[in-house]
Amino acid sequence: MINIDKLEKISKLIRYFILISTTRAGSGHPSSSLSAVELMSTLFFGGFFKFKINHIEYINNDRLIFSKGHASPLMYSLWAAAGAVSEEELLTMRKFGSRLEGHPTPNFPYVEAATGSLGQGLSIGLGMALNAKYIDKLPYYTYVLLGDSEMTEGSQWEAIQIAAHYKLDNLVGIIDVNRLGQRGETIYGWDIKAYEKRISSFGWETITVDGHNIKEIADAYENALSVKGKPTMIIAKTIKGKGVNLLEDKNDWHGKAISKAQMDTALKELGNVDKKIRGEILNPEQVNIPEEGIEEYDKIPMEIDKIATRKAYGNTLVNIFSKYPQIVVLDAEVGNSTFSEIFKKRFPQRFFEMYIAEQNMVGTALGLSLRGKIPFISSFSAFLTRAFDQIRMSQYSNSNIKFVGSHAGVSIGEDGASQMGLEDIAMFRTLLVSVVLYPSDGISTEKLVEKAAAHFGNVYIRTTRMDTPIIYSKEDDFKI
Amino acid sequence: MINIDKLEKISKLIRYFILISTTRAGSGHPSSSLSAVELMSTLFFGGFFKFKINHIEYINNDRLIFSKGHASPLMYSLWAAAGAVSEEELLTMRKFGSRLEGHPTPNFPYVEAATGSLGQGLSIGLGMALNAKYIDKLPYYTYVLLGDSEMTEGSQWEAIQIAAHYKLDNLVGIIDVNRLGQRGETIYGWDIKAYEKRISSFGWETITVDGHNIKEIADAYENALSVKGKPTMIIAKTIKGKGVNLLEDKNDWHGKAISKAQMDTALKELGNVDKKIRGEILNPEQVNIPEEGIEEYDKIPMEIDKIATRKAYGNTLVNIFSKYPQIVVLDAEVGNSTFSEIFKKRFPQRFFEMYIAEQNMVGTALGLSLRGKIPFISSFSAFLTRAFDQIRMSQYSNSNIKFVGSHAGVSIGEDGASQMGLEDIAMFRTLLVSVVLYPSDGISTEKLVEKAAAHFGNVYIRTTRMDTPIIYSKEDDFKI
Repeated sequence: MINIDKLEKISKLIRYFILISTTRAGSGHPSSSLSAVELMSTLFFGGFFKFKINHIEYINNDRLIFSKGHASPLMYSLWAAAGAVSEEELLTMRKFGSRLEGHPTPNFPYVEAATGSLGQGLSIGLGMALNAKYIDKLPYYTYVLLGDSEMTEGSQWEAIQIAAHYKLDNLVGIIDVNRLGQRGETIYGWDIKAYEKRISSFGWETITVDGHNIKEIADAYENALSVKGKPTMIIAKTIKGKGVNLLEDKNDWHGKAISKAQMDTALKELGNVDKKIRGEILNPEQVNIPEEGIEEYDKIPMEIDKIATRKAYGNTLVNIFSKYPQIVVLDAEVGNSTFSEIFKKRFPQRFFEMYIAEQNMVGTALGLSLRGKIPFISSFSAFLTRAFDQIRMSQYSNSNIKFVGSHAGVSIGEDGASQMGLEDIAMFRTLLVSVVLYPSDGISTEKLVEKAAAHFGNVYIRTTRMDTPIIYSKEDDFKI
Repeated sequence: MINIDKLEKISKLIRYFILISTTRAGSGHPSSSLSAVELMSTLFFGGFFKFKINHIEYINNDRLIFSKGHASPLMYSLWAAAGAVSEEELLTMRKFGSRLEGHPTPNFPYVEAATGSLGQGLSIGLGMALNAKYIDKLPYYTYVLLGDSEMTEGSQWEAIQIAAHYKLDNLVGIIDVNRLGQRGETIYGWDIKAYEKRISSFGWETITVDGHNIKEIADAYENALSVKGKPTMIIAKTIKGKGVNLLEDKNDWHGKAISKAQMDTALKELGNVDKKIRGEILNPEQVNIPEEGIEEYDKIPMEIDKIATRKAYGNTLVNIFSKYPQIVVLDAEVGNSTFSEIFKKRFPQRFFEMYIAEQNMVGTALGLSLRGKIPFISSFSAFLTRAFDQIRMSQYSNSNIKFVGSHAGVSIGEDGASQMGLEDIAMFRTLLVSVVLYPSDGISTEKLVEKAAAHFGNVYIRTTRMDTPIIYSKEDDFKI
């Protein structure tokens, strides 16, 4: 039985934290935070979310991603209500040097992934859920808090498709339908049935709730945790700015802190806040990942004469897997062109078809990377431009993704400019600590793909369609 | 009454054209072309598609976009069957210098927009349909041929959402569900009900057909043309490689031409081809666009002291609209940050909210641009990275889009790196004939925004969040 009275008290405390931290900062998104207070406090302290608060790196912790990253004041306040952040630290939010940045980054260690560019969290969660279900085979759940406005991003629907395809019943999305985007009403306003119809049509379980009714929310989580064979979306009708008269369901308050005087009024409305109360997050199940050794297998010999670097890439993935068993390979339905299919044929359990949906592929890779995997993800280099925003954002999450773009340059000829990777180097060179590798032959490909696996951080490898002659020898060394 | 017998003969001719052109080229996508022959021949020659074949620029021609651009052999063969391309020219396909490129580009004048990067055609069509319904107020229809594989692209679902939102009953999509992508079965295979369920949930009319049954197809178009208040998607179950035994429903034949010997066999299977038969495309209704003068209005005076360039941008749009009445303004739900809302408030009929779906916004802008408009489209500069692939592709369509990215650089401060435009210059500098403008004050913004409107071609304008002092004078001149 959940203790509704206590959850209400904690929710009040969280509202207090949201208001004092944003007003002190003089900026931020209190109204977008206030709408999801009950959704998150019930998740955290209603016995659903399981997390070792003193062991952040624990492999079986549940995962929570704020896809609506601008609700960071809520996130920090949640952890404060759990006792992991002091009220004093909350007041440093958005100050230079504080762990509590305007949008979440892993500088605050409870943040799973940096967010703030909308429409990316569900894909990241998908990667973490995929990891739990198919790779680490762990019982943890992944929760993603979504904004209603961001549901128009196509990347969300990519994630919705692929999560259903992989039957990720360990993935739970929560949409905070507070009706108002940054500049006015969202495309569907408070029509939560519109979301339900669309999302369920893709094969998700959907549950609609009043997002301020703790009992309804708790029932929804309980139901979500019993769903089998498909992911669940909880669609919650909420009020933006809930709990503060000045803000409730008001336009033109997006991304604005209230003044000190307004806060004093708001805190009076809030009434008595029990500042000593703290919520308890349950511990996850104690588990170990069984060490699954990779059986001995035949390596693929290097061609002597010539080989396309894209093919050498596929061969090398196979050859280094025993040394880097964290490798996971994703492809955007062109594995027979990028030659990731060579790996797929040998190690199908470590290959995930991501279909033609590059944005979600990158988000998924980020989720896998954050769970300790080394994702190698491939498409035509031209089509990786599709995911530039996801690529850009991944760098703020200490990511370790190996991007592989094939068919680089004009040499592909008659297929034409649409298929030519001409912008890829410029794109990947914009990243902090950018590593761009462009092997010219089979041997340099072999060496550089292994270097990429060994190097912690994002790496871009560019491959060519046509065969090129072998010009290096096995003794040549390459450094990143 | 449609003449099924004649349409069958023309379909046979088109199959013949597809085979001889791809086999001669030695590459290309015959199997992906063959699956959509009846869908397209019935559209063209069944009395539905209206086009002045000798007046390509005619404003009321129907529009057809091959979102599955790799079916270009079908497109060229269609126009050959209409008498616009000779059999001789078909045999130049994919040769250097030929108008008939591997993927469609406007070098072939019947191509509305360059395609080949999947998942972009529906957005382009949306822009053209938006133009017909709300701007030019013309009765033309826009048709988009879609592949089943590309339906996983998130951009498709952005377009599906926004087309329904704008009730574009002059937009008809046709999905060629041939079950096979480039590397095997697509995510939903031949489950056309899966497409129907998902697409209709977004408020589209959906019609499922046997994609090789001319009568069913003709009925579908007839129904589509009578639908009011929403767009229509025709979902056709087809056979990849239809008509050629060697190819029919076979994997591993994507993007491959058959050999000369295989072609001889295939042509025997095809039987008698009437090489003299040509189809007739009906003429569209004769119309004129009424000249709608813009009423006199007060201009917004320039600030004397200081102003944010993003605000000067919004002001300038208002001020130059009378001089450039082709201007259309789009924004990705951040108009109160980019200040495109200043224009929206004055000229709401020329502003279209694109919601948080940047890829579709760029595709829509391309469609508008190709119908003679000057789209100014804005978001945070950081979030324009979301649409890099659409931006990249637009350059191959002789596009005239003005991209405006606000909140450039680190000066936005506490909102953090996720919101900062740091990669935008590198991104836009990769374009051919790249024009990147970064005004520093209100006056240079005013001048450069007008220069951008006057310049034919893509232009990127970068604006800043905070006020900056006026440093130029009204007499200063700027050149692109």
